[in-house]
Order: sequence, then structure tokens, then C-alpha cells
Amino acid sequence: MKPIHIGLLGVGTVGGGTYTVLKRNQEEIARRAGRKIIVKMIADKDMDKALSLADSDVTITTDAHEITKNSDIDIVVELIGGQTIARDLILEAIAHGKHVVTANKALLANHGTEIFAAARAKGVIVAFEAAVAGGIPIIKALREGLTANRITWIAGIINGTANFILSEMREKGLSFEQVLAQAQKLGYAEADPTYDIEGIDAAHKITLMSAIAFGIPVQFSKVYTEGITQLTGEDIRYAEELGYRIKLLGITKRVEKGIELRVHPTLIPMRRLIANVEGVMNAVVVRGDAVGATLYYGAGAGAEPTASSVIADLVDVTRMQNADPMHRVPILSFQPDLLSDTPIISMEEVETSYYLRMQVIDKPGVMAEITHIVADHNISISALIQKEASSDSDRVSIIMLTHLTVERNINAAIVQIESLSVVMSKVIRIRIEELNN
Amino acid sequence: MKPIHIGLLGVGTVGGGTYTVLKRNQEEIARRAGRKIIVKMIADKDMDKALSLADSDVTITTDAHEITKNSDIDIVVELIGGQTIARDLILEAIAHGKHVVTANKALLANHGTEIFAAARAKGVIVAFEAAVAGGIPIIKALREGLTANRITWIAGIINGTANFILSEMREKGLSFEQVLAQAQKLGYAEADPTYDIEGIDAAHKITLMSAIAFGIPVQFSKVYTEGITQLTGEDIRYAEELGYRIKLLGITKRVEKGIELRVHPTLIPMRRLIANVEGVMNAVVVRGDAVGATLYYGAGAGAEPTASSVIADLVDVTRMQNADPMHRVPILSFQPDLLSDTPIISMEEVETSYYLRMQVIDKPGVMAEITHIVADHNISISALIQKEASSDSDRVSIIMLTHLTVERNINAAIVQIESLSVVMSKVIRIRIEELNN
Repeated sequence: MKPIHIGLLGVGTVGGGTYTVLKRNQEEIARRAGRKIIVKMIADKDMDKALSLADSDVTITTDAHEITKNSDIDIVVELIGGQTIARDLILEAIAHGKHVVTANKALLANHGTEIFAAARAKGVIVAFEAAVAGGIPIIKALREGLTANRITWIAGIINGTANFILSEMREKGLSFEQVLAQAQKLGYAEADPTYDIEGIDAAHKITLMSAIAFGIPVQFSKVYTEGITQLTGEDIRYAEELGYRIKLLGITKRVEKGIELRVHPTLIPMRRLIANVEGVMNAVVVRGDAVGATLYYGAGAGAEPTASSVIADLVDVTRMQNADPMHRVPILSFQPDLLSDTPIISMEEVETSYYLRMQVIDKPGVMAEITHIVADHNISISALIQKEASSDSDRVSIIMLTHLTVERNINAAIVQIESLSVVMSKVIRIRIEELNN
Repeated sequence: MKPIHIGLLGVGTVGGGTYTVLKRNQEEIARRAGRKIIVKMIADKDMDKALSLADSDVTITTDAHEITKNSDIDIVVELIGGQTIARDLILEAIAHGKHVVTANKALLANHGTEIFAAARAKGVIVAFEAAVAGGIPIIKALREGLTANRITWIAGIINGTANFILSEMREKGLSFEQVLAQAQKLGYAEADPTYDIEGIDAAHKITLMSAIAFGIPVQFSKVYTEGITQLTGEDIRYAEELGYRIKLLGITKRVEKGIELRVHPTLIPMRRLIANVEGVMNAVVVRGDAVGATLYYGAGAGAEPTASSVIADLVDVTRMQNADPMHRVPILSFQPDLLSDTPIISMEEVETSYYLRMQVIDKPGVMAEITHIVADHNISISALIQKEASSDSDRVSIIMLTHLTVERNINAAIVQIESLSVVMSKVIRIRIEELNN
């Protein structure tokens, strides 16, 4: 099948991430989309940046119009940002019959009605998964995964900068100004952080989610917006004492009188999952009348997380071009004739870490015997605890946590340990997963 | 546009939920799908159940073959369960050119290869969002939302019965046997709970997720499966002391040698979001090389949550039948000419609860004055705390939590409170969201 041709407008953080991931995972992506997705042209004011990033077969230009009007381009990806030039380019791409993928929440919140109408009139797609909550496929969940529901409400931590600031204020007891300065130094906040700390960025995003959830036009001007600049460490502490965390939430709710659309700092009970989302991560809770509450969590910003959403849209658009329904969205995601034959490995070959518990006779040398066996099998111990056994006074429980090792090693060590005369029980073994990378 | 005709096989818990939600939300669903989705026929051995559930325009039969061979049916929904009759009916539906939507994880884990091959050969879709993690649109996230990524691993709490048992053991200090009996009484565990407590149900589901994530054939026989029956309160306590929670996890991981595929109790660090998923809820963590870690949380079972996923698949299949790409997946989910004109209500009309903090002079009668004003505005107080102010000794901070009230009332109360001579600061106001219903 003929490859899909992409024209990339802008190779800043997200543009660069998009090109990089498209290249790195091109084979996997092509297996899923049913066709190759190729960046044919890149436009950026900074030609040097584009030249250093892209392969020689990509046409680089400083004139974005060369892309939006180019008959060889199927999809235009707008990653310039801003609301003037980007709007003109998107409308021009649409006018020339090209699909558009964008991450531009500000533009869509303010001009979405006009842009979507133009796309409909022309029969092209405008996709914007990357505009809301970075890599989390929340737009897809709202637009497709939850179509059975009358959505009741959505509440989201959708600005990582603001959430990072609130996390730091709480964890380190610093003031808003102190943490803002730190965030800027770390690159988590812009030199001009207004959109983030005044809640405007969150307002852009909740507007888009509200439109999809409730089937209403995009209405950014109606969002009540209040940022985090007035929050103090005092309130964060009192909230904590009362059992609450303070987060900047974007909220939209269907009520009797109409639809609420608001952004503001909010106390949330500590026992809610979303109250425990810290740092630059995002999370969105959606409640539907059939499914109940659902939560989606992930990286809300960053080159590759946002690129993940841009590319998800590219694959979506590509799949929709495919002639037959079978190849549009393959049952198992991958085009049927391209399943891989990577083997499932046996449990013995799995590498993980372990919690072991055993009951032993309480006498000198027992601990040494056991730790010796463990070491013999190339297993390192990360924690070792002795507990009084519940009944007999001459018995104790030993609890051991190990570092990563192959299951085969643990199996062999357990067999040996259980054969010791001082070991009075079978060895309980429960695997550990740190789930961090 | 001509309505899509559904044939429903089975009106048990999920079948009944599917019919109910399709009916209740038919207008919203039609607005999204671009066509009406109508249940034309229902098959169930228990005709009485079907007759009491369905409207008179639905044809009821005890013979499922009347549906699978019926030229008037576009999509067959298999919600019978089991691996023999269900398999025959699904293959028959495929042979007659019908798309299939199913929740049958056991059948697909064991016979998926055969069924998917038959569907491909015939050019029809087999969709199974409802087979994994109930209402959470995880299959869609893996198959579409994360297509940019090489998936590194997936770890999921995907059996609510087992998770409920572990939560109760931990929270109430009861034994496995005690909690199992309780779970059966509450309907959270079947009379024969083998599939749930031995990890087999979770193994079915992780098999399906593994196939989609890694583009490999469905290989249920290769899953290492270990349930929760050997876990004791002792281990749950020790794990907690060491900073871990024990959950039954389905895990699949891409490693150098191949792919891991396993189900077993696992210690997870308490600070991980997924470690805090309790009761019958499900959660799946997916890590991709571009997006990083993402988490999806929601109800893993139940009539309406599972129906939500069945219907999401019905809408997907319906949309794919639409001739032009524009109407396949509408930009804002709803068919463009059918946007609603529900108004965005002003902030003054929003009803929520509030945290208020103010600095006052510490003398008798001040609290009474303030609470009097609050009551005058029809606001109930849920908590009231007095704190020593940081500096002056004649000042104290009053912190007040209110029950639900309209913002207009709080605004008016605040104006009055701030006008009191004993109130020495502006009233800090932060809204509260319980996020529970």
C-alpha cells in the first residue's frame, strides 16, 4: 500500500519528538497502520534545527505554505503553537483537502468552532489527542471508548506545571514563589508561566473535553478560570489535616440547569486516587452513567509523550483511509499478516525480585546458613527481618526481600533452604514488582 | 441513515445491562454513531427473562441460530459465555458475514486464533473490549491510543473478585476463607470461584492484552498462572510493614529473550497508584517507550460497566460502516449536525462545597457572628476549626468546611463576613470536590 505522506510544521519539542518516534518505531507503526507513515516535508523558521534532526530524504523549508498547499502531502501536523499563523496554516491545509493533526489547545479552544466547521465542509479530519493531557489517550476515550454513556462529569489534573508546583509546596513546605522559580529552572515552567499558573492552559483543555463529552460547541469564553497564584502553604497544610489535597482541577459537569465549565484550585479527599497524582503527571476522571467512574493517568507533557498522541492520531487517520473495514482497525491492532513470532519465555527465565518467608528454629548460625545458600545462587538480599513466630517460642519467622534474579535461581535456592533441618516450614515466595521502568 | 440491527445472544447480567443502556441512552448513542443502533432479536434459553426485559418490537427466540443466520442482523453480540456453544455461534455468525461483539475472554484466550482467522478471511470484525477490565476502554487504548509505542510492559489488576478478597483481608485482618465466604454472599464471587481465585480469569485477559500489545498470536497455554489461595494475613501484614501491598497482577513484559506472560500475587510499593486500587475495581498500567507509564482505572465488572464496553464496540463497528471518513469518527464525537445547545451555566449557579479561611480577633461572640451569617445564607457547616494565627496573639484563624451550596450564596456570605470589624483578612475560599458520584 502506498505510504501516507506527512508534512510537519514545527520541529520544536513536540515536533522533534514526533519525528524521532516515527523514525524509531517506524516498523511497528507501519505494522499497525497497514502502511508506512513517512515525513516528507518539514517547515520551521530554524532550518538548522530541522536539518540536524531530519534524514536527507526529507524536504526542509522555512515556508510552511509549501507544505499546506502541496498535493503530495496527505496529513499536515501543526506543532507551531500560537493562534495566528497556526490558524491560517490549518485553515489553508483544510482548504487544500488535507487532514490535520495538532496539539494546539489554545487555538482550538478559541477557534475550534470555525476550524471544525471548515473541516466538515471539506470532508477532512482534524484530530487533537495531543492537545489534552499529553500522552494519555483521553480524547479517544471520550470520543469512542465511552460512547455508551451519558457523561455526568469530568475532573482533571491537566496542567503539569501547576500540579508540580502544588506537589512541591506540599512536600517541601515552600512558598508558591520559591517553587515557581525552581520549576522554571528545571524547565517545568516557562519563562512566562501565565497560561499555566493562571489556569488558562487547563481552561483550554477542559473546554475541548466538555465539547466532546456533552456534544456542545467549543466555548472557551465561558470557562470560569482561577489559577494557583493565591494559594499558600497554610491552606495546603490545613487541607491536609482535614484529610484533603489541593489540586488545580479542570471540571465540567452536567447539571439540571446546564453545563458547568470551570478551572480552580480544589480540595479533594486524600483517599481518591486522583488526589495522589503528583508532580508533572496528569490524570482525568470521567464519570458516565453506565460505566461509573474511570480514571486515565500518564505524562501530560514532554517531547515523546505528546508525540505518542500525535502519532496515535496519524495512525487513526491512516487507518480510516484504508478501503476495507478489516484493515481499518485490525482486531489485534497489527495487520493480520504481520504477527510476530517472538516466543513466550518460561517462568524459570523470568527475572524479578522476591519476598520470601520461612519458619526456622531460633538458634545461632541459622541466618548464616540461609544467607549463604542465597548467595551461592547469585541472589542478593535487599532486606532481612526476623519475627517472633506466633506460637512456639523456639521458632522465628525470617522474611527476606531479594534484588532482581532469575526465577530459576530462586527455585533452586528454595529447594536447598527447605532441605535444611532447621527450616520448619515451606518457604513462602511472593514476587515483587517495583513498576517504575 | 438505515439503523444497524443487533442480535443479542444471552440476556444474563451483561446482556440485560446492554439492552438497558442501549435503550436508556439511545438518542445520545445515535447522535454519536450517526445511525440508530437497534436490538432486533434476542436469544436466551429463558424466554421469560427476555420477554420481561425487552420491548414488544424485539423478536425473542430460544434458538440462537435464528439470529446468527439471519440476513436482517448486522452485528451479533455474544454474551452467553462458555467455550462450546458460544464458539459455534460466533463462528456461524462470522460465516454468515456478521460482525461479532463479545465479552468472552475464556473463549478468545483459548480459541482466539481460530476465531480471528475466520473473521479476517470473511472480512468481518470481532471486537472484545468488554472481555478485559469491564468498562475501562483498555483494548482501545492498546490497539489505537498507544500505537506510537513499543510497549515495554503491562501490569493489571484485572480480576475484581481476587482484588476484593485481598482488600478485605488487609483492611479487616480476616483469613482468605472468611473473606471468600463473605464475597460469595455479596455476589462478588461465584459459587464456583475457581477461575477468579486461581488466577485463570486474569490469565485469559492478560493473554489478550499481550497479543494486542506485542503483535503476537493469542497464547493462553503459555501463561504462568498462580492464584491467591495460598496467601495469608501474615504475609499481607509483613508486606505492609515493608512498604508494599499485595495484589493479584496479570503481567506481560517484553524482555531480551522474548515475552513474559504471567499471573501471580505480587508485592507492589505502596506509593504506586495501582497499589491503592481496592475492592472490585480494576486498573491496568501500560508502559510504552514514547509515552512512559499510563494507567487506566474503572469498574472491572458489573452489568452496566461491561455493557458500556459492549456498546463502545457496537458504535465503533457502526461508525466503520459509514461511507465517508468524516462520519466514521466525528471530530467531536457527535455527528456534526447534531450538536446540542445546552447552555454553559455561570459560576454563580454552580453548586459545590467550600473551604473558607479567615483571620479574626480572638474574642467571645466572633464565631457566633460568622456562623450566623453563614446560616442566614442557607449554608450548612460540616467542619469548623480554630487555629492560632502565626503572629499576633489576639488573632486566630478560623477554618470552615461547608456542605453543598450555590456559589452565589457563598459569595454573598463572604461579602458580609469581610465587612465585620472583627474579621481582619479577606476570606480565602477554595472549592471542594468529593468526586464520588
